[in-house]
Amino acid sequence: MRAVDIIIKKRQGLELTKEEIHFIIDGYVKGEIPDYQVSALLMAICFQGLNAKEQINLTMEMLHSGEKIDLSSIQGVCVDKHSTGGVGDKTTLVIAPIIAACGLKIAKMSGRGLGHTGGTLDKLESIPGFQIAISPENFFKQVQEIGIAVVGQTANITPADKKLYALRDVTGTVDSVGLIAGSIMSKKLASGAHSILLDVKVGDGAFMQTLEEAQVLAKAMVNIGNSCGRTTVAMLTDMDQPLGEAVGNSLEVIEVIETLKGRGPVDFTTLCHEICIEMLLMTNFAKDELEAKQRIAMVLQDGSAIEKLRQMILYQGGNPEVINDYQLFAQAKNIMTVKSETSGYIKKIHTHSIGDAAMLLGAGRKTKEDIIDPSVGIKVLTKVGNFVNKGDILAQIYTNGKEEANALRMTQQAFEMTKEVVQKNQIVLDIIK
Amino acid sequence: MRAVDIIIKKRQGLELTKEEIHFIIDGYVKGEIPDYQVSALLMAICFQGLNAKEQINLTMEMLHSGEKIDLSSIQGVCVDKHSTGGVGDKTTLVIAPIIAACGLKIAKMSGRGLGHTGGTLDKLESIPGFQIAISPENFFKQVQEIGIAVVGQTANITPADKKLYALRDVTGTVDSVGLIAGSIMSKKLASGAHSILLDVKVGDGAFMQTLEEAQVLAKAMVNIGNSCGRTTVAMLTDMDQPLGEAVGNSLEVIEVIETLKGRGPVDFTTLCHEICIEMLLMTNFAKDELEAKQRIAMVLQDGSAIEKLRQMILYQGGNPEVINDYQLFAQAKNIMTVKSETSGYIKKIHTHSIGDAAMLLGAGRKTKEDIIDPSVGIKVLTKVGNFVNKGDILAQIYTNGKEEANALRMTQQAFEMTKEVVQKNQIVLDIIK
Repeated sequence: MRAVDIIIKKRQGLELTKEEIHFIIDGYVKGEIPDYQVSALLMAICFQGLNAKEQINLTMEMLHSGEKIDLSSIQGVCVDKHSTGGVGDKTTLVIAPIIAACGLKIAKMSGRGLGHTGGTLDKLESIPGFQIAISPENFFKQVQEIGIAVVGQTANITPADKKLYALRDVTGTVDSVGLIAGSIMSKKLASGAHSILLDVKVGDGAFMQTLEEAQVLAKAMVNIGNSCGRTTVAMLTDMDQPLGEAVGNSLEVIEVIETLKGRGPVDFTTLCHEICIEMLLMTNFAKDELEAKQRIAMVLQDGSAIEKLRQMILYQGGNPEVINDYQLFAQAKNIMTVKSETSGYIKKIHTHSIGDAAMLLGAGRKTKEDIIDPSVGIKVLTKVGNFVNKGDILAQIYTNGKEEANALRMTQQAFEMTKEVVQKNQIVLDIIK
Repeated sequence: MRAVDIIIKKRQGLELTKEEIHFIIDGYVKGEIPDYQVSALLMAICFQGLNAKEQINLTMEMLHSGEKIDLSSIQGVCVDKHSTGGVGDKTTLVIAPIIAACGLKIAKMSGRGLGHTGGTLDKLESIPGFQIAISPENFFKQVQEIGIAVVGQTANITPADKKLYALRDVTGTVDSVGLIAGSIMSKKLASGAHSILLDVKVGDGAFMQTLEEAQVLAKAMVNIGNSCGRTTVAMLTDMDQPLGEAVGNSLEVIEVIETLKGRGPVDFTTLCHEICIEMLLMTNFAKDELEAKQRIAMVLQDGSAIEKLRQMILYQGGNPEVINDYQLFAQAKNIMTVKSETSGYIKKIHTHSIGDAAMLLGAGRKTKEDIIDPSVGIKVLTKVGNFVNKGDILAQIYTNGKEEANALRMTQQAFEMTKEVVQKNQIVLDIIK
């Protein structure tokens, strides 16, 4: 077998066999096949695609390239949730406590943010003292005892994906359905949960810009997951405006706490509930939607959901008092306001720009080496379809001075107005099982 | 400027600017842009193509990456000829003496063979003593004095093309019209001649399998040449059967001498004459086809064409007596015959297989390091459309024993027979100016 022949085969649009995919991935991880052959193959894949069989074989190769987390020692039903990333997406931190309070186990390894999207680990680290680096023993112990843990990746899972992703990033081969699906699903499979809920974001602030693209990706991932014996459901959800109000780490954690207290923004609260419903249904923890809704309402009302968050903070070294006293979070020095310059309906919120503006303030990273300022960010106080009067506050900028003027200008320009009535966005666009 | 953005731009099918092409090629030659980004870009080019403007800019970048041969010190009109390569293609060695005898100057840098196609330098080296490594001074002096030289490349021309070609070879990105055209034309432009005749081979034994593909490549190359101020003509010629009879180095040189003596195979003789006619016309050395034909007939008849070959052999250290005594060439130990197993018409000759069979015998190289045996090869004694009786000799195998059985079997199988009348191949399929 020669790598060049496999490249030519894919260039011609032919299906690669399991053995050929193994030859490439295994050879690449071992350093026997050079970057330049793999990048040419990746580009050929971007044009010719990978069919369902190839996607499964690629995913399995990447899965088997590294360690796998074995959750079988944990009693109960372990679920996992993955978001393709968006602006203001703090969903994990609300749904994990709710479903843990409902009796499911969530042993989640999460990631950091890059570019305009935030990362759950960065958000958690805005809680004073919170540790995301937990030993495997303590991780398992925590999940067993309180049913919830959100930690950084410690095990060397899917090294093939890491190497491939780094190459894709610099060779213009990131956005290819088969490669994205394989990358996400190999990590999810390696993380061990038997039920996987995928939140596929759609819109200006997301990786997938259109519903059609997102559906193709979602179907690919659900197919891989189900083919590998995991119950997998994908929800396609709106990212044509920031999710909730808060964009920025401590601001988002505060919004999480407010949401668990029943005072969260409507769109974000709705999404969290919808995801929890699906998770209870897919694990047979509720027999129908009505029962699922009742269970969720109960754990929110009786405080057991927020108690799960408190326990997790405590177990992971953080100060759980933040739940009652938001002043314990790092505070931005200054809050600037963005006001509407005209009266009218909000036609569009350029979500990617809001994410970039927050990044410039210090809430995110332009490069992996950048250091996050947990206190800064943007609060987007209106939604697409709302009517606002001239002078109404559209957004607040929480700033410590960094790139303040640029962030202010970008945020101001992110709002598109019209005199005509605009329909409000739906939060859940589709569910693929 | 970032390489990844240029890759993505081409992936999206957009035109790359002159500056972007410069950034890539210059950065690649300097080692600032890594192989893996260039190979991804090459694959994107294979799918999205290069338009005429991009082809010219790529060619010019490669041209300017190295030394250029300045032929301005040579008095007279310098012409160059390039073949895209085929089986039994010894055309240069016939046309160069003819046009030199007609008064044109041909200062040709030629190449070696690889795979199923032969190289002019390998053929010349079958002449005892012949030197292809000539100093630039002697090269210019020889062309000035006798009007003809065929040598190996000494100057460091188009290093960018060399580096790119090596990468294309191992990344499945060889066959892309824009890349092929740029590669060939950058070398031709660097070689200095102001009139360039391109012999684009079409068919089973050629790189381009169909007339349509070959036309696209020919038009691209002619456009680049003409746009860069060189008179460029492309002839599309048949490679659906070996050219002439001889395949193998000394066998081919003997056929060259026979052709200059007026006793060459019809197809090969016709092709050589047609190419010479075009060269005389494009340089205004003949006012029309009739005059061109007369001049060619004259230099063949009066012996001045074969005298040019004799002079070249002499100047380049070879023994010119080979022209009169073919026993001075290395002789194969054994000649085996391939006979027809049925009666009928020759429907097809698998030319690529004939080339491979000759290579196996030692006439060509599987890898760059292989050593050529000048004495071995194959003589194909019939043509597509000929009627043969059972037992007629189709081919002769000149062998020293190496891979003899395989070569014999491949040659036997290369002939496809039919009971129905088959049309004979036309040698010149199209001319693009």
